[in-house]
Amino acid sequence: MPTNRQFVLADRPTGKPTDDDFDLVEADVPDPGPREVLVRTRYLSVDPYMRGRMRDAESYAEPWDVGDVLRGAVVGTVVESNHPDYAEGDTVTGELHWADYAVADGDSLTRVQTGAVSDSAALGVLGMPGRTAYFGVTDVLEPSPGDTVVVSAAAGAVGSVVGQIAKLGGCRVVGIAGSDEKTDYLTDELGFDAAINYGTEDVRERLGDAAPHGVDGYFDNVGGEITDAVFAHLNVRASVAVCGQIALYNEEDLPVGPRKLTTILQKRATVQGLLIGDYAARFDEATERLVRWVQNGDVEFRETVTDGLENAPDAFIGLFEGENVGKQVVRVESESDA
Amino acid sequence: MPTNRQFVLADRPTGKPTDDDFDLVEADVPDPGPREVLVRTRYLSVDPYMRGRMRDAESYAEPWDVGDVLRGAVVGTVVESNHPDYAEGDTVTGELHWADYAVADGDSLTRVQTGAVSDSAALGVLGMPGRTAYFGVTDVLEPSPGDTVVVSAAAGAVGSVVGQIAKLGGCRVVGIAGSDEKTDYLTDELGFDAAINYGTEDVRERLGDAAPHGVDGYFDNVGGEITDAVFAHLNVRASVAVCGQIALYNEEDLPVGPRKLTTILQKRATVQGLLIGDYAARFDEATERLVRWVQNGDVEFRETVTDGLENAPDAFIGLFEGENVGKQVVRVESESDA
Repeated sequence: MPTNRQFVLADRPTGKPTDDDFDLVEADVPDPGPREVLVRTRYLSVDPYMRGRMRDAESYAEPWDVGDVLRGAVVGTVVESNHPDYAEGDTVTGELHWADYAVADGDSLTRVQTGAVSDSAALGVLGMPGRTAYFGVTDVLEPSPGDTVVVSAAAGAVGSVVGQIAKLGGCRVVGIAGSDEKTDYLTDELGFDAAINYGTEDVRERLGDAAPHGVDGYFDNVGGEITDAVFAHLNVRASVAVCGQIALYNEEDLPVGPRKLTTILQKRATVQGLLIGDYAARFDEATERLVRWVQNGDVEFRETVTDGLENAPDAFIGLFEGENVGKQVVRVESESDA
Repeated sequence: MPTNRQFVLADRPTGKPTDDDFDLVEADVPDPGPREVLVRTRYLSVDPYMRGRMRDAESYAEPWDVGDVLRGAVVGTVVESNHPDYAEGDTVTGELHWADYAVADGDSLTRVQTGAVSDSAALGVLGMPGRTAYFGVTDVLEPSPGDTVVVSAAAGAVGSVVGQIAKLGGCRVVGIAGSDEKTDYLTDELGFDAAINYGTEDVRERLGDAAPHGVDGYFDNVGGEITDAVFAHLNVRASVAVCGQIALYNEEDLPVGPRKLTTILQKRATVQGLLIGDYAARFDEATERLVRWVQNGDVEFRETVTDGLENAPDAFIGLFEGENVGKQVVRVESESDA
């Protein structure tokens, strides 16, 4: 009988999470009940929003309690099925555990159908991040051809797709990212019109050249001072999609900064929060488009793969250091297969 | 020949404007050119947005230069007309001068048609403030019956109309204002469900009772800490119309406060700047509705009338002290009629 390693929340992090906030414990492999499925994890997704679940505060995702097994999007293989839709060997995705194995209600799973694309893409470009980018552009920013769209964390799982979809829509696209490797990737491989390295450049000043006609759409993954800089360039009737605020997630005190409502008023801007769960009824639409774009090369993607479940906390913590290019996933080697 | 008194900007105010920032100068009564009309001022509107025009900074309204004659919405009588649409004695409204007389392109004027309502209403409930309230509710907040709508500066020219239109739409309406006289007016005369005196009550705490199901729509005229308090009560998918930020207009330094984008994200709220000029093509629709509501008593209004052009600066400065209930107007006695 294989053992089942799983991560539990050892402590609520103070500031930036550390390894000590996570405990790897061993448990029995669970038995699936009626209509349940036992899944062996192949890939685990770590995402910035999980930081919010480690906090004891109401937000859009339920807070985790200390001692809870951490949860996240997983791509895995069905090992045992009591659900008519799934058989042993099927590849599925769903919200499961930071663990080797987990049991899920079969109705909560989705079959992975990524065509010629890798299975792990179901956690990135063809999963939640890709869909977030899709609805953020089509439903929130709604840019017109010729508009200038700026995206922060532009080399990340969501931002890289946002920029490419905006390019498909005929926009001028400017990405903001944290290293020259990333900005080169944006302009040289993904076709962004310009990219700004916020670590070495003055974002507000550089936007004057990179967005000479101002900013019509801003897809914000980071918040904080980068967002302050972009707000200074918003055009009249600009749209802002607020998708993430990673620059603030590790703050213990209420973050303060320049008040933005005056800018929103002066520019008659629309600033809208974006949460992918609100678009659940239209996931198929997004997946269909994304699969087509990826297959015909209109949307490219990268993944940063960390090997071993035991390294999941480091992969997660690395998100706040900007260590990943594209989607950060953890490849989980089940001990039973070792 | 009567003289024409007119106010010029003597200095750009630092912080709260003072009398010294305004100069009353005498000039000749101007002659109207082709298609122009000479108008004698009867009522002059003073509005908070004018503070922005006194600042040397780009905004939605052109900045005034020191020495410029101040401009504002006026209701007046045609004294001389070179325009086919207007004859001596007609009552018109338009953006004219803080002055006894001004000349205007006839095409820029509108005939005052307030029915049984007073002519000065064309500066308030049937003018720019009323229309701002109308589009703010119908096009930005778009509340459903049963929603809770909160409005700040609720006893002012815009806020009082916002609340009454939301009540007509079946909403629970909570007003925030600065005196017991104002909160009594809101609940006892205008039919608001609750009103909070921000001068004596803790807005954030009181909203727990006044908006027990949270806030679905917030019409913001003030910004600053009152808005911080309302944001703490926003519901998921709340709408915020940013119409004014009077609490910040006299700040010399960039106002700072709690960052709001995290709340906007968590609540998937939509925050939109509202400027009435953007709705110019639909002014008739708004005026028609407002006239009907006022005539049948569905929308009530008050005016605070200051007598004498020479007192216009005090009336304007009083806006920042919250001295007015309803629309603040200045009744101008032309010297030629004295």
